[in-house]
Amino acid sequence: MTSAMPTASAGGPIRVGLDIGGTKTDAVAIAGDDIIGRIRRASGHGDEAVIANVVDSVRELQAEAGFDLADVRSVGVGIPGLVDAAKGRVLHAVNLGVETLDLAALSGARLGVPVAVENDVKAAALGAAAIRGANTGTSMAYLNLGTGVAAGIVTGGVLWRGARGTAGEVGHISVDPAGRLCTCGQRGCVETLCGGGALARAWGRPGALPVRDIFDAADQGDTEALLLRADLSRGAAAAVRILVLSADVETVVIGGGLTALGERLGDGIRTALIADAAGSPFLRSLRLDERIEMLPSGSPAAALGAALVGSHVPEQEIAVHG
Amino acid sequence: MTSAMPTASAGGPIRVGLDIGGTKTDAVAIAGDDIIGRIRRASGHGDEAVIANVVDSVRELQAEAGFDLADVRSVGVGIPGLVDAAKGRVLHAVNLGVETLDLAALSGARLGVPVAVENDVKAAALGAAAIRGANTGTSMAYLNLGTGVAAGIVTGGVLWRGARGTAGEVGHISVDPAGRLCTCGQRGCVETLCGGGALARAWGRPGALPVRDIFDAADQGDTEALLLRADLSRGAAAAVRILVLSADVETVVIGGGLTALGERLGDGIRTALIADAAGSPFLRSLRLDERIEMLPSGSPAAALGAALVGSHVPEQEIAVHG
Repeated sequence: MTSAMPTASAGGPIRVGLDIGGTKTDAVAIAGDDIIGRIRRASGHGDEAVIANVVDSVRELQAEAGFDLADVRSVGVGIPGLVDAAKGRVLHAVNLGVETLDLAALSGARLGVPVAVENDVKAAALGAAAIRGANTGTSMAYLNLGTGVAAGIVTGGVLWRGARGTAGEVGHISVDPAGRLCTCGQRGCVETLCGGGALARAWGRPGALPVRDIFDAADQGDTEALLLRADLSRGAAAAVRILVLSADVETVVIGGGLTALGERLGDGIRTALIADAAGSPFLRSLRLDERIEMLPSGSPAAALGAALVGSHVPEQEIAVHG
Repeated sequence: MTSAMPTASAGGPIRVGLDIGGTKTDAVAIAGDDIIGRIRRASGHGDEAVIANVVDSVRELQAEAGFDLADVRSVGVGIPGLVDAAKGRVLHAVNLGVETLDLAALSGARLGVPVAVENDVKAAALGAAAIRGANTGTSMAYLNLGTGVAAGIVTGGVLWRGARGTAGEVGHISVDPAGRLCTCGQRGCVETLCGGGALARAWGRPGALPVRDIFDAADQGDTEALLLRADLSRGAAAAVRILVLSADVETVVIGGGLTALGERLGDGIRTALIADAAGSPFLRSLRLDERIEMLPSGSPAAALGAALVGSHVPEQEIAVHG
């Protein structure tokens, strides 16, 4: 799988993938290995708006890339929240104002195309694995640094689902009993250190991109900003260590909204990994700083992964929904 | 697989499993699903003693259970240290005084029986899964609380190997930047809280079973002992959370030398899991206190698992070694 630049439709089967974020939706259409169309639009809030968003995204992609709806074989949706992927049901997506929603069935019926739904980070993990094009024998975790922090684990090209839907929930592992209170009720969670939402709350000053403001203020020597910038790096470094020392993935790919910080983000995490390993021959032997990869800001990984989720809908599901 | 009490040899193929600890070795012979013999002996120190231990354990089991060496189809060895399972090679087993040792080839040649080698915790994880007899569709982690702390993850009856041999190394995840210094060079590792060796060092008083002394002194109200006892519970609770929030295993089975503490160990860990979840609806929803199981002290899980490791040696390996 390559993430080639948009090309004209090849006329073959089309897969659509949507990454529905709390405010914006990123949608791609793929044909074979190529991204043939990409749009971004507002996400909308509430059940009806979320369903309409899926339908309208497909239509906007049609208009943009010039393919027929009849050629769309599947639609995959990545959504931030708890998802019952087997039933295509959203169970709890607080940022979208959705409690329980049969999103696959309802949007699929309107489109006449089978729709699959997956947690956004899990979908992005599949997309990141596809973009890397790595050997399917390898293992990787996709660590999403956005408003919240979570990871998806992919081994042999397959998503690790786990027993109860908490695989990769490293954001809510406490690494400091004296740390800040987390929205989950624990203290010192990884997410309190490197989640965009937690950092913005700790910073407490207005601004469109609080984490960028923190980095800029840190560059100017602001003490509070320096501490929060260090928190971000050490929290992400802790997440990387946890993923390697539990699931033992070969590579940790870092993506999510905070990649808008550019090289400053990756440099900070690498520096923290090296500094934390300075006193530990064991940690040094893991060479963690060489095992992280940064997704570029604006990567289509999440939407691409959603398209892949859709393409894996079993035939039986397609018959039911189509 | 049931761990039935020893019965007379059925005359069929026999699998031998050894759990080689730093001081003692536990060895079992199994026929079909039954343990038909079990011995314990001193482990020995250094390359030659470790090889002799494998050979002599098999012979002692023969004498005890009354089977022929010709009926022994495989020998599996669990050993505390870094193991290249594919090559049957021990790479680093500091407690046994072994640096690099072709244990499978050398002991297999003396016995005329194929020998497989695995890390002791990984082998014990397989054994614990077999003893539970759980549905192969389920996932579990085996958390070993011994001198050190590590886990093995088993999903669908298969050991999770990971990319570089650090799967389940939760003992060296730091959960407290202000915690005690770990032998690995980090501060506040899970192992500094709930490893028998770290607790004995922190306690610093002589005694055959320092962790039991700590529990007894805590019962008498000794302040230092109370703190260390609480450390043990909160460290083990942290390990359980890490395993569920990364690999998302359904169940965490706890075994290892500290199970000699009996119900006091399990009660303490359950209490810590409940207390830590008091302020967190998220943690409470995971019901972690209901998802741990304690192996009884003296469980043959580790030796049984080693026997299973041996029984999985591919035919090609058998031809080479046998």
